[in-house]
Amino acid sequence: MAGSSFGTIFRITTFGESHGAAVGAVVDGCPAGLDLCEQDIQYWLNLRRPGSSRFTTPRKEADLVHILSGTFEGKTTGTPIMLLINNETARSKDYSEIAGYYRPGHADYTYDRKYGFRDYRGGGRSSGRETAGRVAAGAVAITLLARLGIDICCYVRSIGGIEIDESRFNREEILNNPLYMPDAAAAREAEKALDLAREKGDSLGGIIECRITGVPAGLGDPVFEKLSANLAKAVCSIGAVKGFEIGSGFAAAAARGSENNDPFRAGPQGPAKASNHAGGILGGISDGSEITFRAAVKPTPSISIPQQTVNKKGEEISVSIHGRHDPVIAPRAAVVVHAMTALVLADALLLNMTSRADYIADFYKNR
Amino acid sequence: MAGSSFGTIFRITTFGESHGAAVGAVVDGCPAGLDLCEQDIQYWLNLRRPGSSRFTTPRKEADLVHILSGTFEGKTTGTPIMLLINNETARSKDYSEIAGYYRPGHADYTYDRKYGFRDYRGGGRSSGRETAGRVAAGAVAITLLARLGIDICCYVRSIGGIEIDESRFNREEILNNPLYMPDAAAAREAEKALDLAREKGDSLGGIIECRITGVPAGLGDPVFEKLSANLAKAVCSIGAVKGFEIGSGFAAAAARGSENNDPFRAGPQGPAKASNHAGGILGGISDGSEITFRAAVKPTPSISIPQQTVNKKGEEISVSIHGRHDPVIAPRAAVVVHAMTALVLADALLLNMTSRADYIADFYKNR
Amino acid sequence: MAGSSFGTIFRITTFGESHGAAVGAVVDGCPAGLDLCEQDIQYWLNLRRPGSSRFTTPRKEADLVHILSGTFEGKTTGTPIMLLINNETARSKDYSEIAGYYRPGHADYTYDRKYGFRDYRGGGRSSGRETAGRVAAGAVAITLLARLGIDICCYVRSIGGIEIDESRFNREEILNNPLYMPDAAAAREAEKALDLAREKGDSLGGIIECRITGVPAGLGDPVFEKLSANLAKAVCSIGAVKGFEIGSGFAAAAARGSENNDPFRAGPQGPAKASNHAGGILGGISDGSEITFRAAVKPTPSISIPQQTVNKKGEEISVSIHGRHDPVIAPRAAVVVHAMTALVLADALLLNMTSRADYIADFYKNR
Amino acid sequence: MAGSSFGTIFRITTFGESHGAAVGAVVDGCPAGLDLCEQDIQYWLNLRRPGSSRFTTPRKEADLVHILSGTFEGKTTGTPIMLLINNETARSKDYSEIAGYYRPGHADYTYDRKYGFRDYRGGGRSSGRETAGRVAAGAVAITLLARLGIDICCYVRSIGGIEIDESRFNREEILNNPLYMPDAAAAREAEKALDLAREKGDSLGGIIECRITGVPAGLGDPVFEKLSANLAKAVCSIGAVKGFEIGSGFAAAAARGSENNDPFRAGPQGPAKASNHAGGILGGISDGSEITFRAAVKPTPSISIPQQTVNKKGEEISVSIHGRHDPVIAPRAAVVVHAMTALVLADALLLNMTSRADYIADFYKNR
Repeated sequence: MAGSSFGTIFRITTFGESHGAAVGAVVDGCPAGLDLCEQDIQYWLNLRRPGSSRFTTPRKEADLVHILSGTFEGKTTGTPIMLLINNETARSKDYSEIAGYYRPGHADYTYDRKYGFRDYRGGGRSSGRETAGRVAAGAVAITLLARLGIDICCYVRSIGGIEIDESRFNREEILNNPLYMPDAAAAREAEKALDLAREKGDSLGGIIECRITGVPAGLGDPVFEKLSANLAKAVCSIGAVKGFEIGSGFAAAAARGSENNDPFRAGPQGPAKASNHAGGILGGISDGSEITFRAAVKPTPSISIPQQTVNKKGEEISVSIHGRHDPVIAPRAAVVVHAMTALVLADALLLNMTSRADYIADFYKNR
Repeated sequence: MAGSSFGTIFRITTFGESHGAAVGAVVDGCPAGLDLCEQDIQYWLNLRRPGSSRFTTPRKEADLVHILSGTFEGKTTGTPIMLLINNETARSKDYSEIAGYYRPGHADYTYDRKYGFRDYRGGGRSSGRETAGRVAAGAVAITLLARLGIDICCYVRSIGGIEIDESRFNREEILNNPLYMPDAAAAREAEKALDLAREKGDSLGGIIECRITGVPAGLGDPVFEKLSANLAKAVCSIGAVKGFEIGSGFAAAAARGSENNDPFRAGPQGPAKASNHAGGILGGISDGSEITFRAAVKPTPSISIPQQTVNKKGEEISVSIHGRHDPVIAPRAAVVVHAMTALVLADALLLNMTSRADYIADFYKNR
Repeated sequence: MAGSSFGTIFRITTFGESHGAAVGAVVDGCPAGLDLCEQDIQYWLNLRRPGSSRFTTPRKEADLVHILSGTFEGKTTGTPIMLLINNETARSKDYSEIAGYYRPGHADYTYDRKYGFRDYRGGGRSSGRETAGRVAAGAVAITLLARLGIDICCYVRSIGGIEIDESRFNREEILNNPLYMPDAAAAREAEKALDLAREKGDSLGGIIECRITGVPAGLGDPVFEKLSANLAKAVCSIGAVKGFEIGSGFAAAAARGSENNDPFRAGPQGPAKASNHAGGILGGISDGSEITFRAAVKPTPSISIPQQTVNKKGEEISVSIHGRHDPVIAPRAAVVVHAMTALVLADALLLNMTSRADYIADFYKNR
Repeated sequence: MAGSSFGTIFRITTFGESHGAAVGAVVDGCPAGLDLCEQDIQYWLNLRRPGSSRFTTPRKEADLVHILSGTFEGKTTGTPIMLLINNETARSKDYSEIAGYYRPGHADYTYDRKYGFRDYRGGGRSSGRETAGRVAAGAVAITLLARLGIDICCYVRSIGGIEIDESRFNREEILNNPLYMPDAAAAREAEKALDLAREKGDSLGGIIECRITGVPAGLGDPVFEKLSANLAKAVCSIGAVKGFEIGSGFAAAAARGSENNDPFRAGPQGPAKASNHAGGILGGISDGSEITFRAAVKPTPSISIPQQTVNKKGEEISVSIHGRHDPVIAPRAAVVVHAMTALVLADALLLNMTSRADYIADFYKNR
């Protein structure tokens, strides 16, 4: 099954394994005439790149992106944009041992069951390295959104239960600390917890939060293609994500209708909600207010604390996984959430242009 | 945008408004030779049907399904199965008033923004009545899954914060109480809370839980078509759902890797996990163990407590919504979650058959 | 496999068997605000309807269409439009005999091989009756195209080798004769040939031609989604169609480049082609000129002349097929070609709106 | 619009411009465990490669393919197979002149109208070079088909009206002459005609024929996803193709039913057709016999004979197109038709596995 594509009009296809020759993506359906160069994409790959702090794997990858097609004289042409990132340090020797057993919390076992065998080098296609292609493609979507005035702010809200304090929220702080948190004090505390976990050979989970402004009302479609449903799929398709909630999310399940409903007020640009428990989406369609959601990210499954597992002969063994692993996934995953969000929005923006017969008639009047 | 279809091979398309002539679904891609009659589908529609308890809208709908195509002599033929449910009591007079303003927590405003106008009768396409088509189509998927030994158990885990006690879990109890809870004591407590809320003109949210057994290992695809991602989309596409979590879900975000990883043990049928924080899916692919997930459902937005909103002239007004409304959505939504889950699994089962070249060669050897 | 849907944004799903309860279609993705009533659709169904002349099957079907969803106060709402046509005269006794053998030129054998059995009543899903759903859905597309000034003229060009004379082309004549030909003299001659064929228990094939004006330049996409490729698929998906050619078609294969190229001239609205061997499409994209194509339709396979075939026991038998059959398919198929053409164009029109970043920015500037 | 993907389960996405950095394809949904190396693909790229005879453009391209992902230890892994072909000789200076005007018979004008500008170097994405990605991807499909015993024979049937003689049909001859014809005498005659055309600065069209054996009965789906409809789309999506016909094709339009129907005979493996006017497909589904179709290919539009056209200022000018151009497209296009045919069949083979509930139950019985 062709599972490596995402989107309907603005559609990407990613490829590549952790220790293969390259990873990357083809972006098809990007509108023509968008200014785009490799630096636009490189910026986001650098944010996702391993080796940038003591909390990310020391694997060294320049992650240099090459645009091999789809642009001409600095602009997109409307044809597929091929984004290639060569893998530089594929240290296969590190991974030969894991060929023989199933790492807990990884996809080793399920890939073997589905495909009969697996590329065991660094997790192959199930590696987090797969997300480099998503981020490269997402950067193209971000460029399109920026032109339309849409801004995505994505960050780590909590790590191992240590949460940011809303009153200290500072967007600029996100890039100042290695944990991608918008609160310096919370980040310092989380760093201590992470250092402690790593000393013990353990890892921590976290929560990513995303806020999007500038989204016009009307994006998303009724029933199955709700904007919220597509955000849920996009976010839950990221390897370590175990949960998704929009607006009040799970808290809404314990609330009363009178608390959870957002009253409408008369505003200068028309009706506006007085609160935002809905998270910016009503009936699956954007309402013009801020869109907010959160994603739960599990702790890194690769830990050096000994764990019980089974080898391919069916024998129970104890394994201790060493190598180049982040003790926390959430900070780098936040960049991936950002990219996936941009892809969902770009596609929804294009799809929404065909919702009304009068708009279509206007569009074609002079063409 | 064609947003009313779901699935790739086993694909459904739903249609219908709350107060139009009919609702229903076309199921395309259902394999031939499956025993199917109207009673198989009616059973699930009856579970979802309004008017069955004091916690559901007193709207009377027989919700009788008619199979208009796709079966012959009691078996599916491989061609589209058309499932039609006529709307009987479309009391449009109840709704004429709401044409002029935007109900908080509803899709009135976003539909107007997207489409320029809306079918305001009972919420039109954004009404919960849309889910009758999903349930009818889902019943076909359930029939296919049953033949393969796959069992879905879906129920209400909590209402307004009142949660079931795992030690009292009794599957048969689910159909014994009006709240679809597998714990009679919790159901009684929740009923009291609901009566109290309704007296005040208010409503409550809840959490739905789903457990699936008998799923073979290997379903789902890497990257974007993870089984978990498709379950997330399926569940978050249901009107009132605000969150989704699989396995440990949001709790995993506060856990350590050594807690959250599931060790493998040697079992009689091969490797088996000693715990199930993963919720039965590793790397997006089913691992053969129980699949578990939860969905957060918001409280019914239609409440009679006065709320502030804006009318189409832009004036702020106070509204009190009377009419036929459930004080809680979760119990009836649980049937919809069940249906959507079946649809995701049926599609994944069909897609997975093509994952290996040797299986394909075997399949065609004598055909 | 879900084979009964067509289109990406403007997407239809048809259903129904020849002798089931009903046939019809769901149109999803139709823009909101389009004036649409049942008469708009009925007009086209009447053109396709059996029983209207001595060259069509005497089966009596009113083919009355009911819009069960997707419109409100005479306008489309943007939600799925359900079009239902009840089957009235399902004379199953006529067909019970054919259950036991494979009719030459029909799909009996292949359905049995694919699905293990078949709905043998009147050909089931493989019957030409399936096209009623296409025509109903196509009528919605035609309504959208009309609003944009796009005109499709579709007719029978030849029957049994008897071809229209271009110099006598008269569009109004198409509806004046039972053979849907724009040349009264050719129609009279073809009628004679058909009468002769029918007397002998035989049937004739024909060629359908289609000319489309008012199509803006820019529709269609490079590579696989060429407008010409989608027209080819649309037309070749109609039961009896055996060939498709655009512009000069097969004649181009015997031509020289200097003959086949269309020179550009300077025109009042920009460049215009001095000839149209291309058929209005260059590189898969409409060039703003008339689009022209032809389809080859085979003779009706149901003939009363005895034919050799095999029954389900594997015995060779001779069969003579009596019943309600047209001696020629092309005239009624021309209405289906018209409908499919409209569906391809409607979808291409919507898809093309997202081709340029500046258009997208314009669209969202004030929304 | 994402127009560069083809297929549902076995799905490819191509990319690349004539004078960009690279062309290629991503193959997603290829089953795991298939033996595949670069030579398997290179063989087909070499057949398509320019510069191999005096009738192909003298442009020199090694067209070396690199598999960058999706295989491990010589086998496909079930993950996307990335096939990269670097462009070596991108002589942009040859093409700078054509930036200013619209070449007759090319997509220059329509790309400008659709996208606002174009990559004018060698035709950019509309160049025949785009087909290298199709052929590379098609080679993967051919490898899968070979394992299942399916054989495709594709060749040039006629050039400039000079047709092969069926009695001299010799499959091995196809690779012996530069025109890809299975009849040495016809090839010699066609060579002379081509030499003559080229001397005059002109070009010739041709017809490609395809015969496929070993296809199991049951491939393809009713209504829109007929095997014949997908072949039509696949073939008509190739740049210069102007027509498609299956089996008797356009000849069927002039035939009687008694001539065109294929009687069934009792055969050792069940019913078999005594003739094959149907071309191996009945009701859109393969019947187990040979599949045959033809494609009409227009003459090369780039000719050195002066032609009238219009420049971007709107002025009429006369142009004479020199450079590296084949005087006939059909021979190289035959390799592309072969590749596209393989892609359609591979996808249909995978899709057909889910057609029957009993087959599905069998498949999962022990998994």
